[in-house]
Amino acid sequence: MATRNMEDYLEAILDLQNNKGYIKAKDIADKLEVKRPSVSEMTKKLKESNFVSYEKYGGITFTEKGRKLAREIRKRHDLFADFLRIIGVSEKNSQRDACKIEHDVSPETVECLINFIKTIR
Amino acid sequence: MATRNMEDYLEAILDLQNNKGYIKAKDIADKLEVKRPSVSEMTKKLKESNFVSYEKYGGITFTEKGRKLAREIRKRHDLFADFLRIIGVSEKNSQRDACKIEHDVSPETVECLINFIKTIR
Repeated sequence: MATRNMEDYLEAILDLQNNKGYIKAKDIADKLEVKRPSVSEMTKKLKESNFVSYEKYGGITFTEKGRKLAREIRKRHDLFADFLRIIGVSEKNSQRDACKIEHDVSPETVECLINFIKTIR
Repeated sequence: MATRNMEDYLEAILDLQNNKGYIKAKDIADKLEVKRPSVSEMTKKLKESNFVSYEKYGGITFTEKGRKLAREIRKRHDLFADFLRIIGVSEKNSQRDACKIEHDVSPETVECLINFIKTIR
């Protein structure tokens, strides 16, 4: 399973790829507001786990495995954010708090919340 | 509004008062696993906000305002934990994750969740 931090990166790369196509480490650093060395360290890990591929001085691209996982993470995030909006939370807080809930609580609670939200949607 | 940290202290004092009656700073330090200077600092703030009263070398007791707020915080916690148990989360994770959700998300989301949970219980 991807760590929390890894999930943030995968989501960021998915967004960037949808908007820009060609992604460089700097784009990720800007988007996540982290330092370049942190991006280098994480993209190395993502490559080792076969989630992304890249060449030195080249762009970062998803592997099929990486894109699949990133889409699942995004889907889960959208589900939480939709739920919060349905119960009356504003757009801004629903996006922010969906991230917080999905990243901070136990995997068991995430799974139970997903199943519950699916039954009431 | 009490800060997050303050809320933890108020909940801890409520538990201790229910179990022990007479509370000293050491009891709070042990319960919250924090250092004594942190307890001194926070009890000073709690006294300034008129949530607790204490004398040097004496016990810490709630003011009426403090007890009322602590009970509201506890009620909110129980509501979240009950909800998580209802949707299938284990006892241990429901307690732990109720704390995380109520402390990490925005006040708006807390309020919307409370209203929602009340309608489905």
